[in-house]
Amino acid sequence: MSTVEERRLARVALTWLSEPGTWSVWRLVERLGPVAALDLLVTGEAPDDRLRAAVAARMASGDPRAVAAEALDRAERLGARVVTPEDEEWPVRVGDLRLLALSGAQRRVDQETAPPLVFWVRGQWPLAEILDRSVSVVGARAATGYGTHVATGLGYGLAEREWTVVSGGAFGIDAAAHRGALNAGGVTVAVLACGVDRPYPMGNTALFDRIAETGLLVSEWPPGAEPLRPRFLIRNRVIAAATAGSVLVEASARSGATQTLHRALAVRRPAMVVPGPVTSAMSVGAHELLREFPAARLVTGVPQVLEEVGRIGADLAPAVRGPERPHDHLDDEAAAVLEVVPRRRLAGPDALAARAGVEVRVVLRKLSLLEQLGLVVRRDGGYALAPPAKLAARGRHET
Amino acid sequence: MSTVEERRLARVALTWLSEPGTWSVWRLVERLGPVAALDLLVTGEAPDDRLRAAVAARMASGDPRAVAAEALDRAERLGARVVTPEDEEWPVRVGDLRLLALSGAQRRVDQETAPPLVFWVRGQWPLAEILDRSVSVVGARAATGYGTHVATGLGYGLAEREWTVVSGGAFGIDAAAHRGALNAGGVTVAVLACGVDRPYPMGNTALFDRIAETGLLVSEWPPGAEPLRPRFLIRNRVIAAATAGSVLVEASARSGATQTLHRALAVRRPAMVVPGPVTSAMSVGAHELLREFPAARLVTGVPQVLEEVGRIGADLAPAVRGPERPHDHLDDEAAAVLEVVPRRRLAGPDALAARAGVEVRVVLRKLSLLEQLGLVVRRDGGYALAPPAKLAARGRHET
Repeated sequence: MSTVEERRLARVALTWLSEPGTWSVWRLVERLGPVAALDLLVTGEAPDDRLRAAVAARMASGDPRAVAAEALDRAERLGARVVTPEDEEWPVRVGDLRLLALSGAQRRVDQETAPPLVFWVRGQWPLAEILDRSVSVVGARAATGYGTHVATGLGYGLAEREWTVVSGGAFGIDAAAHRGALNAGGVTVAVLACGVDRPYPMGNTALFDRIAETGLLVSEWPPGAEPLRPRFLIRNRVIAAATAGSVLVEASARSGATQTLHRALAVRRPAMVVPGPVTSAMSVGAHELLREFPAARLVTGVPQVLEEVGRIGADLAPAVRGPERPHDHLDDEAAAVLEVVPRRRLAGPDALAARAGVEVRVVLRKLSLLEQLGLVVRRDGGYALAPPAKLAARGRHET
Repeated sequence: MSTVEERRLARVALTWLSEPGTWSVWRLVERLGPVAALDLLVTGEAPDDRLRAAVAARMASGDPRAVAAEALDRAERLGARVVTPEDEEWPVRVGDLRLLALSGAQRRVDQETAPPLVFWVRGQWPLAEILDRSVSVVGARAATGYGTHVATGLGYGLAEREWTVVSGGAFGIDAAAHRGALNAGGVTVAVLACGVDRPYPMGNTALFDRIAETGLLVSEWPPGAEPLRPRFLIRNRVIAAATAGSVLVEASARSGATQTLHRALAVRRPAMVVPGPVTSAMSVGAHELLREFPAARLVTGVPQVLEEVGRIGADLAPAVRGPERPHDHLDDEAAAVLEVVPRRRLAGPDALAARAGVEVRVVLRKLSLLEQLGLVVRRDGGYALAPPAKLAARGRHET
């Protein structure tokens, strides 16, 4: 029987031998446990040719267990830790990735979407606890001022309501969401596509330091790992699955952020999209998502996001309403009478009755009501509209 | 047996006795014909108390047939005509209003949505022909620069593709849509809530003159009729039903334009909504519609509008795509190799194989392909990425 430490080492080694998300490796671990799975791969008995070739190529540059031990040492020196499914702080929600099947997946990154084997974590909070009440906010790196404004507001508002804001640490929308949460004194998590010791991009180094101090930096790759391009998409499945829902703020027509939303939809998480001007190239991807996926939900702010991810009965968004006006509650006849009362001259009840198509005795009753409401004034037996100051703005021609 | 002219006069008189859209009047006309229906109302035998009271009140100010004859004379003098269901140019599509039932209708304007009895028309085109290929573009009067820009573009683009642009002649979005169509040398129709001789608002008089010259001014109310407030909503059912679909560009939380979309949905017409910045009060109504009605369709431009209203097989919107890049078509192994080729130094096939997790002989084959595509360069047996000028913008870290 293997020890916890042997199993932990084996998981780290397995993630080095093959990129995270590889189904054949994950299935081996499920079936045999990590130690036996690693032994099988190391002895060249991988279940398929492709994996066997990948393992052989990787092993040419080192012994998996030695590399893993070195990574664990390096992590310990910089104050990072490894979290595995055996740990209490493992975020069980990522297990839903076992259900993920992207329709029409052609690329390897869309096919190899198995649950993670390990997480590397930098920061003080227990990973599961911090992710329990979390929403991801993702979007374009080349964000516009509009997108940055909206993402900062979402990050701030979610953090203020004690939701963890998860994103990818990139320039643009990601950074704005992280900053919004930090500005609210809240908790934010950056899920990286490289080692937690060298978060990418370098230009966000000060931001990453603040996140590590008050939130968490998380990665499936060991310290020192480079942010190779396919890793961003591999990483995105974690952002989608580890949170209670994902919000897209701006995305061009081809954007990794839309891929995060595809993954959220595939694991049945609320997938939310903030619309933008149709004249902005940075909202094209957002609008395409809303058009293509009926399950993707248009949201315009924090209350609507919380309505999607919130517990039933709590966090419900108030309906959007215009300001109330005195004549909103008039019955049809009173409204009809009010319509025909002139503004600048006086009209008698008979004339008003003929114009409104309402009987004179009813007109008299309604005029009395309208006078009480301050909507009409009576002078010398005639009626006129009350001066505009007494009425709500925009008067009678509002449709 | 009544003559065509008697029936026409009766329809005009009926519309004066009770506002257009009144179900009880429309049903009487369906059952008895317009002449007998008018006789019945004039003799005080209206089928319900409310209608009887309305007719009596209106008749106190004139004889219905005399008023109608006067309206017809006035129309003839100013070059307008009456169109009834007996005329060839009657737009039969408005008959679908017989199916209209707005859910939760409390207000009279939401309940009384019967098909029109007559149209008053100013302009040269046959009404039915001009409305056959038509789309309505409606929205806020207090439009923003964004909304005005989008509505003008839609009006222009639809007219350019020989679609008639229908709107309500109001300030803001309506006027922008009309102007866009006129600028394209196309045909546009203003459906008014008042007489076609005094189109409201006055500030759009020059616009109405241009519309009357090249398109049509249309109304259910006779010349001289005032734009009373409920009439805008009564009119909106015509805009929704007479066109092949309706597009909303900007609407505040409570807006008549959203009511037009409700009516389009109720008569099963394509109901389309242009999103906007969530920071704009003028897009709140648009976003609420998209959230509330799954059948409302988000559109971002003319091709998507035509896709909704166009004949099947024609007018299909092209899918939105980003620019193509050379590495879009790489297989997974070539992409994996490309990822690990360094930019500023040289790496040999063995090192690349170990880093990419791909066998050396495969690496050599893929490097040869990448070299042919101009993505990598070979020097002294080592490989580096081709200089950025040869690559598409933004390089390797794009997600």
